[in-house]
Amino acid sequence: MNEFELIARLAQSLPVNESVVTGAGDDCAVLDLGLPDKLILFKTDAVVEGVHFEPDTPPEKIGRKALARCLSDIAAMAGAPVAALVTIALPGNFRAGVVAGIYDGLNALAEQFNVAVAGGETTASPGALLISISLLGVVGRDRQVLRSGARAGDAIFVTGELGGSRAGKHLDFEPRLAEARWLADHFQLHAMLDLSDGLAGDLRRLVQASRVGAEILKSALPVSRAAKLRATSHQPAALAALTDGEDFELLFTLASRDAVKLLDAWQIKFPRLKLSCIGRILAGQGVRLRDRTGSHPLKLHGYVHFA
Amino acid sequence: MNEFELIARLAQSLPVNESVVTGAGDDCAVLDLGLPDKLILFKTDAVVEGVHFEPDTPPEKIGRKALARCLSDIAAMAGAPVAALVTIALPGNFRAGVVAGIYDGLNALAEQFNVAVAGGETTASPGALLISISLLGVVGRDRQVLRSGARAGDAIFVTGELGGSRAGKHLDFEPRLAEARWLADHFQLHAMLDLSDGLAGDLRRLVQASRVGAEILKSALPVSRAAKLRATSHQPAALAALTDGEDFELLFTLASRDAVKLLDAWQIKFPRLKLSCIGRILAGQGVRLRDRTGSHPLKLHGYVHFA
Repeated sequence: MNEFELIARLAQSLPVNESVVTGAGDDCAVLDLGLPDKLILFKTDAVVEGVHFEPDTPPEKIGRKALARCLSDIAAMAGAPVAALVTIALPGNFRAGVVAGIYDGLNALAEQFNVAVAGGETTASPGALLISISLLGVVGRDRQVLRSGARAGDAIFVTGELGGSRAGKHLDFEPRLAEARWLADHFQLHAMLDLSDGLAGDLRRLVQASRVGAEILKSALPVSRAAKLRATSHQPAALAALTDGEDFELLFTLASRDAVKLLDAWQIKFPRLKLSCIGRILAGQGVRLRDRTGSHPLKLHGYVHFA
Repeated sequence: MNEFELIARLAQSLPVNESVVTGAGDDCAVLDLGLPDKLILFKTDAVVEGVHFEPDTPPEKIGRKALARCLSDIAAMAGAPVAALVTIALPGNFRAGVVAGIYDGLNALAEQFNVAVAGGETTASPGALLISISLLGVVGRDRQVLRSGARAGDAIFVTGELGGSRAGKHLDFEPRLAEARWLADHFQLHAMLDLSDGLAGDLRRLVQASRVGAEILKSALPVSRAAKLRATSHQPAALAALTDGEDFELLFTLASRDAVKLLDAWQIKFPRLKLSCIGRILAGQGVRLRDRTGSHPLKLHGYVHFA
């Protein structure tokens, strides 16, 4: 049993109660606490030195990234963030300025999205610097967009550009909160998630949750400039766009009859952010990639981080 | 600036929004999300190998303790827990059985208190095993008991027995959820917290938050059997009860005219759990200890863990 199988098995046996609408397995947990018109979104996520940032990453960017990752998960449910708690595990040799810098970056992003930072804990750690964020949000009752609603025939869309995030974007990305809420307000989204592990792996998760398949059109992939600049014969830019991870863009599906209307409306609403139709949902299962030579099963699983 | 001053300063400058009723500085954050009759309690807490448990602590007990600490904080607000999220940072050499064991212990306690485990993340860690828990709870609107409401003349109470927790209780303690809710339902509590860092330090926090002072009667301290067994001339049992930490008992105050009525009602409701009146709230500031020789300022700050 590898770690993924273990975690999948554990996730099946977690205690539930009457508050749980959606538990483990989606971008956020969805809880019903009795609010007449809203459900609660609940998310936790950690960044660790040496895994999600480097020892020389500026503390402000570490704090910003820690919160931004959680905000991206709230966006993926078409929700609005409300309040965060911060846990920092600090190695013994930490400098006070590092903690202050982490909070500076985190607080600035929180203020940008009107998120309260309602408390924090600091604990000693014999190991690496770790920041764990807990985030509460809300979403209109039955307006949450899960991973599991994709239907055969849907068009598949992705915001922004993919690949090469580790060159810098992973520290500076904008959580697509406004975009996701606009999408959910104006279109009937069937399924959505935020791209954290790479399109290939994350699309596979979406189609598995939805019990469908998908075909991506290679020529439609919005490959980032960073990925193109770093492309080699071993790692072509399209592969980077499929597998690099940490894009934190929205991946979603809707009925293909809405696709052109969406593209037109998007260009007016968000003229500076690319929106690409990259393929379609198929009956069956698995993810396929169509290029000049035909349609092939996509074996790539995307960047596998241990989470 | 030491770490406590730093964290106190940071806590003052956290972003807030209209949802925040009580932010950093109490046992839980208190949020108003618009529920007609309830407020939301939000708490996060981490346990780290080498700090809160040892490398040879059974995984089931680690998982149980991680959740129990957060449940104790919900108890300290007189709330009811609803749903938890679990983040585990795992060193590279972990065994699958450790993760399964952590969840076994945690899930069993969650089921005991009807808490949903609504999701979890596992991340790689170059350092020590760390478990961070996020917990959501609810409390009747304006029924939450803060640290800041103690008044001169109040009687000070503590549940259970104090000291020597590290001999075993810190892994097995019962969060005082039922007791705290019964107290808040039947008495006008003025202030409450859960004892995590030792009576001396935690009472100091309570009186500082309430802008009052306190006097403890040494002979009234409920010293645990574990503390008595381990007492030495350097570390008398009463000192252990004041400073050992990790007791996870309730410390609370109410008007002294309610004290006898409370003790009578408690003995009928919770005959197996000791409740002790250990002193009184004074005008002024600071914590004093009264023994046979008189009343002395208490210099001890309790077990100082870095949190």
